[in-house]
Amino acid sequence: MSFLKRSKAKQVELSSGVSIQTTASKSEETKIVLWTYDESQLQEQEIQALEEVLPVKDGHKVIWINFDGLSETAVLEQLGQMFDLHLLVLEDVLDANQRPKLEDYDDYLYLVVKMLYYADVQRSQVVVEQVSLIIGSNLVISLQDAGGDVFDPIRRQLRNPGSRLRKAGADYLAYTLLDAIVDHYFVVLDKLAEDIEEIEEELVENPTSQTLETIYNLKRELIFLHKSVWPLREVLYRLTRGESPLFTEQSRIYLRDVYDHAVQVIDLAEIYRELITGMLDIYLSSVSNRLNTIMKVLTIIATIFIPMSFLTSVYGMNFKYMPELEWRWGYLCVWLVLITLSGLMLFYFRKKKWL
Amino acid sequence: MSFLKRSKAKQVELSSGVSIQTTASKSEETKIVLWTYDESQLQEQEIQALEEVLPVKDGHKVIWINFDGLSETAVLEQLGQMFDLHLLVLEDVLDANQRPKLEDYDDYLYLVVKMLYYADVQRSQVVVEQVSLIIGSNLVISLQDAGGDVFDPIRRQLRNPGSRLRKAGADYLAYTLLDAIVDHYFVVLDKLAEDIEEIEEELVENPTSQTLETIYNLKRELIFLHKSVWPLREVLYRLTRGESPLFTEQSRIYLRDVYDHAVQVIDLAEIYRELITGMLDIYLSSVSNRLNTIMKVLTIIATIFIPMSFLTSVYGMNFKYMPELEWRWGYLCVWLVLITLSGLMLFYFRKKKWL
Amino acid sequence: MSFLKRSKAKQVELSSGVSIQTTASKSEETKIVLWTYDESQLQEQEIQALEEVLPVKDGHKVIWINFDGLSETAVLEQLGQMFDLHLLVLEDVLDANQRPKLEDYDDYLYLVVKMLYYADVQRSQVVVEQVSLIIGSNLVISLQDAGGDVFDPIRRQLRNPGSRLRKAGADYLAYTLLDAIVDHYFVVLDKLAEDIEEIEEELVENPTSQTLETIYNLKRELIFLHKSVWPLREVLYRLTRGESPLFTEQSRIYLRDVYDHAVQVIDLAEIYRELITGMLDIYLSSVSNRLNTIMKVLTIIATIFIPMSFLTSVYGMNFKYMPELEWRWGYLCVWLVLITLSGLMLFYFRKKKWL
Amino acid sequence: MSFLKRSKAKQVELSSGVSIQTTASKSEETKIVLWTYDESQLQEQEIQALEEVLPVKDGHKVIWINFDGLSETAVLEQLGQMFDLHLLVLEDVLDANQRPKLEDYDDYLYLVVKMLYYADVQRSQVVVEQVSLIIGSNLVISLQDAGGDVFDPIRRQLRNPGSRLRKAGADYLAYTLLDAIVDHYFVVLDKLAEDIEEIEEELVENPTSQTLETIYNLKRELIFLHKSVWPLREVLYRLTRGESPLFTEQSRIYLRDVYDHAVQVIDLAEIYRELITGMLDIYLSSVSNRLNTIMKVLTIIATIFIPMSFLTSVYGMNFKYMPELEWRWGYLCVWLVLITLSGLMLFYFRKKKWL
Amino acid sequence: MSFLKRSKAKQVELSSGVSIQTTASKSEETKIVLWTYDESQLQEQEIQALEEVLPVKDGHKVIWINFDGLSETAVLEQLGQMFDLHLLVLEDVLDANQRPKLEDYDDYLYLVVKMLYYADVQRSQVVVEQVSLIIGSNLVISLQDAGGDVFDPIRRQLRNPGSRLRKAGADYLAYTLLDAIVDHYFVVLDKLAEDIEEIEEELVENPTSQTLETIYNLKRELIFLHKSVWPLREVLYRLTRGESPLFTEQSRIYLRDVYDHAVQVIDLAEIYRELITGMLDIYLSSVSNRLNTIMKVLTIIATIFIPMSFLTSVYGMNFKYMPELEWRWGYLCVWLVLITLSGLMLFYFRKKKWL
Repeated sequence: MSFLKRSKAKQVELSSGVSIQTTASKSEETKIVLWTYDESQLQEQEIQALEEVLPVKDGHKVIWINFDGLSETAVLEQLGQMFDLHLLVLEDVLDANQRPKLEDYDDYLYLVVKMLYYADVQRSQVVVEQVSLIIGSNLVISLQDAGGDVFDPIRRQLRNPGSRLRKAGADYLAYTLLDAIVDHYFVVLDKLAEDIEEIEEELVENPTSQTLETIYNLKRELIFLHKSVWPLREVLYRLTRGESPLFTEQSRIYLRDVYDHAVQVIDLAEIYRELITGMLDIYLSSVSNRLNTIMKVLTIIATIFIPMSFLTSVYGMNFKYMPELEWRWGYLCVWLVLITLSGLMLFYFRKKKWL
Repeated sequence: MSFLKRSKAKQVELSSGVSIQTTASKSEETKIVLWTYDESQLQEQEIQALEEVLPVKDGHKVIWINFDGLSETAVLEQLGQMFDLHLLVLEDVLDANQRPKLEDYDDYLYLVVKMLYYADVQRSQVVVEQVSLIIGSNLVISLQDAGGDVFDPIRRQLRNPGSRLRKAGADYLAYTLLDAIVDHYFVVLDKLAEDIEEIEEELVENPTSQTLETIYNLKRELIFLHKSVWPLREVLYRLTRGESPLFTEQSRIYLRDVYDHAVQVIDLAEIYRELITGMLDIYLSSVSNRLNTIMKVLTIIATIFIPMSFLTSVYGMNFKYMPELEWRWGYLCVWLVLITLSGLMLFYFRKKKWL
Repeated sequence: MSFLKRSKAKQVELSSGVSIQTTASKSEETKIVLWTYDESQLQEQEIQALEEVLPVKDGHKVIWINFDGLSETAVLEQLGQMFDLHLLVLEDVLDANQRPKLEDYDDYLYLVVKMLYYADVQRSQVVVEQVSLIIGSNLVISLQDAGGDVFDPIRRQLRNPGSRLRKAGADYLAYTLLDAIVDHYFVVLDKLAEDIEEIEEELVENPTSQTLETIYNLKRELIFLHKSVWPLREVLYRLTRGESPLFTEQSRIYLRDVYDHAVQVIDLAEIYRELITGMLDIYLSSVSNRLNTIMKVLTIIATIFIPMSFLTSVYGMNFKYMPELEWRWGYLCVWLVLITLSGLMLFYFRKKKWL
Repeated sequence: MSFLKRSKAKQVELSSGVSIQTTASKSEETKIVLWTYDESQLQEQEIQALEEVLPVKDGHKVIWINFDGLSETAVLEQLGQMFDLHLLVLEDVLDANQRPKLEDYDDYLYLVVKMLYYADVQRSQVVVEQVSLIIGSNLVISLQDAGGDVFDPIRRQLRNPGSRLRKAGADYLAYTLLDAIVDHYFVVLDKLAEDIEEIEEELVENPTSQTLETIYNLKRELIFLHKSVWPLREVLYRLTRGESPLFTEQSRIYLRDVYDHAVQVIDLAEIYRELITGMLDIYLSSVSNRLNTIMKVLTIIATIFIPMSFLTSVYGMNFKYMPELEWRWGYLCVWLVLITLSGLMLFYFRKKKWL
Repeated sequence: MSFLKRSKAKQVELSSGVSIQTTASKSEETKIVLWTYDESQLQEQEIQALEEVLPVKDGHKVIWINFDGLSETAVLEQLGQMFDLHLLVLEDVLDANQRPKLEDYDDYLYLVVKMLYYADVQRSQVVVEQVSLIIGSNLVISLQDAGGDVFDPIRRQLRNPGSRLRKAGADYLAYTLLDAIVDHYFVVLDKLAEDIEEIEEELVENPTSQTLETIYNLKRELIFLHKSVWPLREVLYRLTRGESPLFTEQSRIYLRDVYDHAVQVIDLAEIYRELITGMLDIYLSSVSNRLNTIMKVLTIIATIFIPMSFLTSVYGMNFKYMPELEWRWGYLCVWLVLITLSGLMLFYFRKKKWL
């Protein structure tokens, strides 16, 4: 989950002569899927040229156009002309370094959202992708750079003729897309919660410098996650407030639900961050604690043996006249003194609770 | 008190074909108790089927339906149809991972609150449970997943014909339920206060790494408690502001009282958190302090005996020509030097206040 | 100043059958003093029964009823009936665990304030007491649990016929009571400032673990003080905003003054807290600094004597063939080497600025 | 710059019998300077009695009365009566423990501002003084306790007939006074910036416990400075918002400039505080770093020499049968072993990057 | 990037007699470039005297006057008179110590922005420059003290007759200038991100006290960057809100884009700051960790060899009667004891996971 560096942008010239920045990966091909449906009918087709949209454009069915891959700038330009989109919308679609935001162009809404999902089953790598949503009166256009998304359950729902989605309008489809994206944040959060619990155990049992690095990485991910979801919360709040007539009263009730989930994500992210901050303090304290333990061992050993070694070295001196050396029980006496001495020391340390 | 992991949800299909998520524990049976009362009469019965509610549904008495156990989704669906509840309400009732919230569906209010109580007398384990309240004009429906709640005093009040509760409407009943829930937070807070006082004493007398763990756990519990009560505060604030006509002016004065209590809970939780943060600093400082004490002992011992050992080892050398060794009073002189030396050292340490 | 634990509440049944919670100390007797005054007349009497208030109740004089001791619940109930007070007001009067707050019951205002004063001359123990004020159109009722208050200057002013207090209405009396309470916070703050200055000196001169405990205690007191005054600020703000017609424009100008003082108390409390946080950092740093000093001493001693001891122990070996031992000047050479060695060490340490 | 203790207040009785608090230093005499001017004329005179103001009081010229020294309470009382000032204004003028504030008494504005300037050229001691401004329709009264202020450039401007100040009204004069006060904050800030740069260098080169104390003192000064300017910002904001008709649209544009400066002061103070917080962390880290260096030296010395000393002490034993002692090359072998051993140790330490 | 010290100001007298402060560098010459253009025509000329502006001043073309160097105060005064600018605007233009701000003088807007760019290719030194923008109905005046700016792409666009810039009005030109400035912040941020990544690696591999200094410097730069961009955000917000009629609805949509970028800059700066704070904690922890490692080595060595040395020194004593010395296998026994002892110690340390 690397948010640290912004995607590199390249300059691209539109056919109209205007040049804009794009971060789209050149390798990906643009794949366009067109869905048109109402309660009774559903058409799902991958289209090669945008002209195929024209026949259904002004009908009464709901239209969902899903773009995977943004490298074919010409197609996007054509899209812009076909649906009369502002040039800035096209620029933002092509720039993956956006914050989540909502822009109201009267005829249509433009939303930028960050999609998070795991690319693999081991959930070791989070993929962060920017999704642009353009929402018109009976139209939803969703655009993203790379393939792979979290919309499969929605596709299944669409194919089911009895589903609520088929009965409702484009605004409900937009809600469903947002809902799917926000709900996937919980998958990432659940993985983080697992990691936190693991570290909490490690902290108690056996903290290592590896633990420290993991803590830092978790903190990092949470900072980014928080910054991603926070602006989304406001976007959803504005939608639920009914700023735009494109969302019916009925759909706004559902949006309120997505909004609640986004707030929950923020709440959890904040809780996790506070826990991690607490862990760092605990880590530091327990490192200090262990230093104390180490130093106690050293001090006990040194304090017991250094004075005793001194005593023996006294009687290792080679003076001619050292009366004790001649005594019959001298050696025994020294041993008695040494044993008494170390006994006293041990008693002292036990009293100080160092042992 | 584990808020860290969200409850696992399962997919359940309603008879209408819509499928929703539920976190209800399958094992619990749904137990429904129906109360209908006015000033003069009270009826309290455990019902087996929701149809038993129909006869009293449109009367003038206050109705309180209390659900324990949410595993029988069909019954909930029936409830939804009977009282014309929004599908999202049912979804939220079944999802235990909600934040406390208030939703106004004109005809009725939907509230989510977290209930905290101790499952055992030793107060070692806090149970956190989500309670959903649906409040209509003369109706209160309360739903929770597991049995066990904090409503027993309310039941006693209801059975007392002279009580204020019997004279008032459904909004006053809703107030009483909220009041009982919020008042139980203080029980948890009182336990935390006791723990904090215990640790404060330990910190002064004999801090161990066990203390550290307790501090971390307290911090954790307070983070969760704060996050649980904070949104509740807003819910209550909106109710007291008179957003909904379902609460009379009279009842809102009482709600203001619950609101005050919620604010108090937050205040106390914040005070406790700041205290705990302060404790961590104290802990770290006192660990460092003890390290200083340990190192002083080591340094004093080493500084006194290492030079003395050096001196004796000088006279332990086996050089042929060491005039001192031949002296009559050499050995005595060495002792005098050693005693003077250690005396000076002790004096130096006393001056430095290390002793 | 112990705010940590909430006062224990007992259940008390009113004559009306309603049972409420009380934290009033049973031992204290209720002492009621009734003041009635206008510009020309003043009557001050301790009354035994509330009926004595009736004759003056609806006159044009200002009435001040001061309760010391809240154990006689029956009297309070009678008071509630006489002045038509809401039951919740009585409950709040009896519950000492309130936050400062203002409640507007149209006919009268209900205020809860915390009073802080020193019980003894040495100012070693702060007494915290909850004062309830009920303010009517020409009536002020003040209630507190224990005797002892900060109102003596007000009583003297009242007895002085020329004072502004005698000319003004009940709202001005209420202002004077609030002013007296808030001004007494400064006495506590001044004591804290003295303590802080003492610790600042200790920190520089000779920090001990006692200092650490004092810092923690100061921090604790400031947390509580801040939490006590913060809600009071809002209470006063709302009064100055003219929310209630019971306070005249004229009195509100005076209330603005009390409000300014409350803000000042908060400002000072925040400054003190930041200072104390800074002190903790300094303490930790200076403990680390002293550890460095200790370790330097140890290292210098060890680094000088351990190599020298090694050298002497070499010549303490008993090998048959050790040519140096036979040399005429061997012993002298060893001394020269030892002195040079220690000289070099000392030079090295001086260069490293350890000496 | 000592804000920690509040100035001691004494009780003073006004001739009207009202007694108020004053913190004015008794020693200072009250010096009153009266300026009256319009575009064509300027009169500047030190007056002995307030009666001298009467002749010009109701003319069309701008009047500026500047008080130095507030000990003569009688004169202030007279001033209050002459210009019909509220008693609370007089009380606040006399109490040096005010926060900066703005009070609107319809006919006049009352402002409290803190003036900061250096009493000496070495800029070692900041003087903090409270200035009260009373602003009427063509009147400015400025009051302060001690002599010495930052208004000299304004006096020079006034004496210059062509200056903008002479052409404008009393509101412009008030602006000029505020501007002079706020601009002088930058002098204090510049000194702090110099101190910070000095410490930054010290931190890198040679941090001592003296550095620590300086850091704490800087932090302290910045806390106080911030608390002084913060409320001033709001005062100025309210003035620029046009709350009072006493300031013309034209003057408010100038006030906006002062407001900008106040915000800049706050910005800089916040930047400095954050830098200082960062410094403390660096200090702690570098103290720990130096401890590591010290311990490395000790460990290297001990780890090299303790095993070698052990070896030599083995051959210092006096056993009868120690074959090595008899060997021809025993002594040489020991030296070889010792040299190899220390060589290995040194290699090990170099590999661990301790050397 | 030194924001710490404010630029030194000098007093300059205008021809009107008013004296103002200037921070303009005397050395730089004032270079004025005049652009006048509409869709069909473009004129670009360096002018020597402001009089050359007069002919085009009231035409319908868009005028852009770009000042490099502000030392010629007389020219600025002339500019002020020609376009009827407020004296405060001239003062602010000349004072490089401004916060970014927006001032609305009805006829024109005055904006202060900070421009950041790298003076060299190695991006080692950030240049911070204050740019003043005066925006009239078909006029943009941009002023800065030093040459070198980020406007070259805009100049190229202007020379291209088909560009949007040529078709739009002065407000769009102003937008383009702001956009160029804000986009250049990302260049600085990208450099910071690189530095942070480098340090993150260093922290794990080999943290030194150099790392610490770099961390502090990064923190410092981010504090300043944040304080520079934060007020800009508000400036842009107010422009997008449509406060001024000088910006058309159409241009405001573009301004919203710049606003989004500014918010992104702030977001990134905050993320970087949090990361750096985390790094400091990690640094401290890992320094402590290394101390533990060092102390473990010392303790292991000391604990193994000190008791063994004691034993050997016992048998180095010269007592007459020490039976062990006479034993045939005494020496061998001692070696066995020594080896067993050290083996036990090593086993103990391995069990404690110190090895």
